[in-house]
Amino acid sequence: MEVQPGKLLQNIEFPADLRKLKEDQLIQVCDELRQYIIDIVSVNGGHFGASLGVVELTVALHYAFNTPDDQLVWDVGHQAYGHKILTGRRNVFHTNRIYNGISGFPKRAESEYDTFGVGHSSTSISAALGMSVASRLKGDKNRQHIAVIGDGAMTAGLAFEGLNHGGVENSNLLVVLNDNCMSIDPNVGALKEYLTDIATSHTYNKVKDEVWNILGKISKFGPNAQAIAQKFENALKSAILKQSNMFESLQFRYFGPIDGHDVNHLVKVFNDLKDIPGPKILHCVTVKGKGYELAEKDQTRWHAPGLFDKISGEIFKPVENGPKPPKYQDVFGNTLVELALKNKKIVGITPAMPSGCSMNIMMKELPERAFDVGIAEQHAVTFSAGMATQGLIPFCNIYSSFMQRAYDQVVHDVALQNLHVVFCLDRGGLAGADGPTHHGVFDFAFFRCIPNMVVSAPMNEEELRNLMYSASLHNGPYSIRYPRGNGVMIDWKTPLKKIPAGKGIKMRGGEEIAILTIGHPGNFAIQACDLLAKEGFYPAHYNMRFVKPLDAILLHEVFTTYKKIITVEDHSIQGGFGSAVAEFMIDNGYMAQISRLGVPDRFIEHGEQKELYEECGFDTNAIMNAVRKLVGSAYLISS
Amino acid sequence: MEVQPGKLLQNIEFPADLRKLKEDQLIQVCDELRQYIIDIVSVNGGHFGASLGVVELTVALHYAFNTPDDQLVWDVGHQAYGHKILTGRRNVFHTNRIYNGISGFPKRAESEYDTFGVGHSSTSISAALGMSVASRLKGDKNRQHIAVIGDGAMTAGLAFEGLNHGGVENSNLLVVLNDNCMSIDPNVGALKEYLTDIATSHTYNKVKDEVWNILGKISKFGPNAQAIAQKFENALKSAILKQSNMFESLQFRYFGPIDGHDVNHLVKVFNDLKDIPGPKILHCVTVKGKGYELAEKDQTRWHAPGLFDKISGEIFKPVENGPKPPKYQDVFGNTLVELALKNKKIVGITPAMPSGCSMNIMMKELPERAFDVGIAEQHAVTFSAGMATQGLIPFCNIYSSFMQRAYDQVVHDVALQNLHVVFCLDRGGLAGADGPTHHGVFDFAFFRCIPNMVVSAPMNEEELRNLMYSASLHNGPYSIRYPRGNGVMIDWKTPLKKIPAGKGIKMRGGEEIAILTIGHPGNFAIQACDLLAKEGFYPAHYNMRFVKPLDAILLHEVFTTYKKIITVEDHSIQGGFGSAVAEFMIDNGYMAQISRLGVPDRFIEHGEQKELYEECGFDTNAIMNAVRKLVGSAYLISS
Repeated sequence: MEVQPGKLLQNIEFPADLRKLKEDQLIQVCDELRQYIIDIVSVNGGHFGASLGVVELTVALHYAFNTPDDQLVWDVGHQAYGHKILTGRRNVFHTNRIYNGISGFPKRAESEYDTFGVGHSSTSISAALGMSVASRLKGDKNRQHIAVIGDGAMTAGLAFEGLNHGGVENSNLLVVLNDNCMSIDPNVGALKEYLTDIATSHTYNKVKDEVWNILGKISKFGPNAQAIAQKFENALKSAILKQSNMFESLQFRYFGPIDGHDVNHLVKVFNDLKDIPGPKILHCVTVKGKGYELAEKDQTRWHAPGLFDKISGEIFKPVENGPKPPKYQDVFGNTLVELALKNKKIVGITPAMPSGCSMNIMMKELPERAFDVGIAEQHAVTFSAGMATQGLIPFCNIYSSFMQRAYDQVVHDVALQNLHVVFCLDRGGLAGADGPTHHGVFDFAFFRCIPNMVVSAPMNEEELRNLMYSASLHNGPYSIRYPRGNGVMIDWKTPLKKIPAGKGIKMRGGEEIAILTIGHPGNFAIQACDLLAKEGFYPAHYNMRFVKPLDAILLHEVFTTYKKIITVEDHSIQGGFGSAVAEFMIDNGYMAQISRLGVPDRFIEHGEQKELYEECGFDTNAIMNAVRKLVGSAYLISS
Repeated sequence: MEVQPGKLLQNIEFPADLRKLKEDQLIQVCDELRQYIIDIVSVNGGHFGASLGVVELTVALHYAFNTPDDQLVWDVGHQAYGHKILTGRRNVFHTNRIYNGISGFPKRAESEYDTFGVGHSSTSISAALGMSVASRLKGDKNRQHIAVIGDGAMTAGLAFEGLNHGGVENSNLLVVLNDNCMSIDPNVGALKEYLTDIATSHTYNKVKDEVWNILGKISKFGPNAQAIAQKFENALKSAILKQSNMFESLQFRYFGPIDGHDVNHLVKVFNDLKDIPGPKILHCVTVKGKGYELAEKDQTRWHAPGLFDKISGEIFKPVENGPKPPKYQDVFGNTLVELALKNKKIVGITPAMPSGCSMNIMMKELPERAFDVGIAEQHAVTFSAGMATQGLIPFCNIYSSFMQRAYDQVVHDVALQNLHVVFCLDRGGLAGADGPTHHGVFDFAFFRCIPNMVVSAPMNEEELRNLMYSASLHNGPYSIRYPRGNGVMIDWKTPLKKIPAGKGIKMRGGEEIAILTIGHPGNFAIQACDLLAKEGFYPAHYNMRFVKPLDAILLHEVFTTYKKIITVEDHSIQGGFGSAVAEFMIDNGYMAQISRLGVPDRFIEHGEQKELYEECGFDTNAIMNAVRKLVGSAYLISS
């Protein structure tokens, strides 16, 4: 069933078409755009609440500014569906987040209207500032540069760094603060309370108004009072106009808060702001999920609800044929509580991902010992390190690709001091529909070079539990990475057993070839071995569990027994698990033919995980092919 | 000549001894401590201005607080010399920064008074917050947790993230803002201007005072005015007391600014603050280099002046026997200007290190095209990415170990979009006396797994220049890393030549063994080959220049010609250059014995670079030994 755009929307291919409309038609455009998003997302899936919340902002920005010449940067980007629909991609929008379809995030390669690729949060101010300074250097004074950033993204250090620099660069930079009090989960932290305070009680404006009122009254008291009022006014100018606002402290001119759903007012304000040079911030208050009642009410659930009936609001659950293995993240969440109940030293830390990593389970059960620190990966790690110095055992859960944000803190604050912090890296490997910004395929490489660090990956739920338990007993930094999505064990509540650091397991012996796997792809190898046995091939399979330390005993067995080895990992083959195995081989003077399966040296686009595993060549089929190719082949040593 | 501490200082081994003194003796303690630092640093070298600036803070903190039970965290740490001298290390302080001596930074392994190891900036708030929350969880309500952080460090995003979280945690956290308007170089950014505004014009206090004065006067106007004043007071309370200060916006109680050199007042204030629960910030104004006139006047020069005559203030320059090769950083600084004069698209970006990386040369020559963005590595990279989208060519210079702070921005904002940003990584390899926090030994590993990225390292000045020139012509992300200290070429102003990405060079042919080097250690290999020739050994030497892409043509030559290979790198051997060579070997079906020389898998302490190269085993001698060992040896393949 093809979704039909509304009457006005169907004639808008690009913002130039939008700009031909009259201002009094914009409300209808917004209605049609909102409906189109609901129509498409309900049947195709994707992010939902964020884009509904910025429909009016999106229309007003493209109406008031001369995009793409004016540069519009969306922060994070999952609110940019309306933007995509208005910028030449309405007809392909149904392919959103689908393999070979358009990306769920703005992407430079996709459109000239996507000025900066996003996915991770809080980059927009820095990027737009770079663009605005570039325009200044080129002598282009009229070009506008707009960063649209949520209040959640504003809590990350990068955003603050951008503001601190932006305040002293005299360039055309407008930061639109889209304040909806939400990330995926409700926002936390002092900044959020500050913004709420400004926006809801309107203290800032109220004070400003009252002061002017009173000054008026005082002046009626006669010349003496007049003089006082004058003096007062000067003092207040600096107190209230200059210093009373955090953003003004950083030398941004602050405007707002204004209603982010009044499209006509937004257009007027944007047109006014064009004439004000230098750094400025417009504080817009919006409602995430605006216009779809259920989404307004339960914003976390409707951040990315999956498919749903747009009329009834029923969210469809996939039909199950019997019980299904749990998500790895839920095994993490439940096991963390289980461990924490037994060990009082254990605490949980998440940077703004309680529902994404299932730490919300611990936040409910043991609220005083679970910390959501906001979008602040760096702080999450150093805060954990501080706790570890006092004998606590922090389990710090960060998506693998977001861990890139806290790399220095892992090296400098945790590993160098050999502190007992457990890093649980969710979304390790190819993340699926979120695409290259969210694939976590570098963590083995960037973690295994760090001294003191244990680098592990479980093959299934039981191993995840056992690794978490083992990590709680290991006095030093310990990382456990596991993928997005479901595991393989329906009965996953297995008794906790300690796995010594660096202990792998031989899954089956075999002939001629050994398959060495790390993490979840071990299951592909199990399948491959079963199928290959029917063809008469009998490769051995070792589930190594650890990239560091490697299991030297097992590897000596492997290299003395087999001369043909296949390594399999859901990670870049540059510097990853296979590379570590190669290092072991040369360090120990072995010789073997090694075929490394994993993610090749290019950025992998979005799609279902299965599709991506196939594309990269480390799924069951690929392993079988690698075995078939190696069997009977001569070693290719030139001499 | 042994340095004698003053009369009071000589009886202070630990803070408990200090606390036995009367308050009116503290000024003398400060004088003696300051003199002791001058006496020692003038003959031993080290950081200077920062520690002089916090003498009074240091004495007051240890006098007022019950360290080490109360937890004191120094940010960055090169201001902690006074702290070290007062906490059991006066007698070993002359070994500061010397091989096997004490560290120039606080270090947990060294003393229980060093609660958190530092070196990189802006970690103290997060770490102290972690400690304070741990105390709260343990029910310890009286323990104090103090982070001492400079205004420069406050500009980094991590500090902001810590404040944002700290404001909503009800724990005993005191942030002492040591405001001296300096990092190594003068601070930049909007926050600095804001702090200067508060601290110098005292606007904040002035307004507060004036308002109260005026309210007093108004109340004399009679009952009507009284009512107005009342109403006014309420409005002002929220305006001025709650919102008029940036830190109060983040729910920290703000105190100050106060004179950071009045030790008795500091003691009083600290004692008062102990009784105020929750997050609070004390703004202290200090002078970097305080008490040593020359250091007060030229703070950048006296940040770490080297050895000097403490009476005359003459800074000793090492006696030169004729001309000396330049520092790599100066070759960078001069070449950048040379390139920028020819190519208008080139801009320079440094996060607060203009003198450390010699970008100050460009800042002087082409001020509008060189940007010091403050201690903000993340922003430096994303800002560069923003500029690159507009066709500029940013040369973003970041110390290798600080680049760890911006890893995600390199992956997500630059490489994923294949933007033309050139990363110049100074202090690549073992950094010397600054020790493990400053060694840059992970960059090959964490960069070579990133698609699109060129990873290079020059062997000498000429190659640095040529790589910079080549990077300016390469349309994509490009990294060039080079070490701290001097190169090897006196005549370094060589004509610029393009080196194709991934093109190494055969330095000499040879017999049986090939030495493959990357970067500066290539010079050790040249020496080793010369010396070995006298012993009758003739290894070949290939200077690979690139870790990625590897020179496949050269490597095919190497692996078809030699069966014994030595790789040499100033980098962790886990995942580094040697690992990349091993990957090439197995991917191409070659077999050779590979001996990898480089930094072993443990954190290397401080010392002179030569000492560390020897310890790690990749200096000239080590290469010679590796060759001698391999020559004639049988390949150790077990079968």
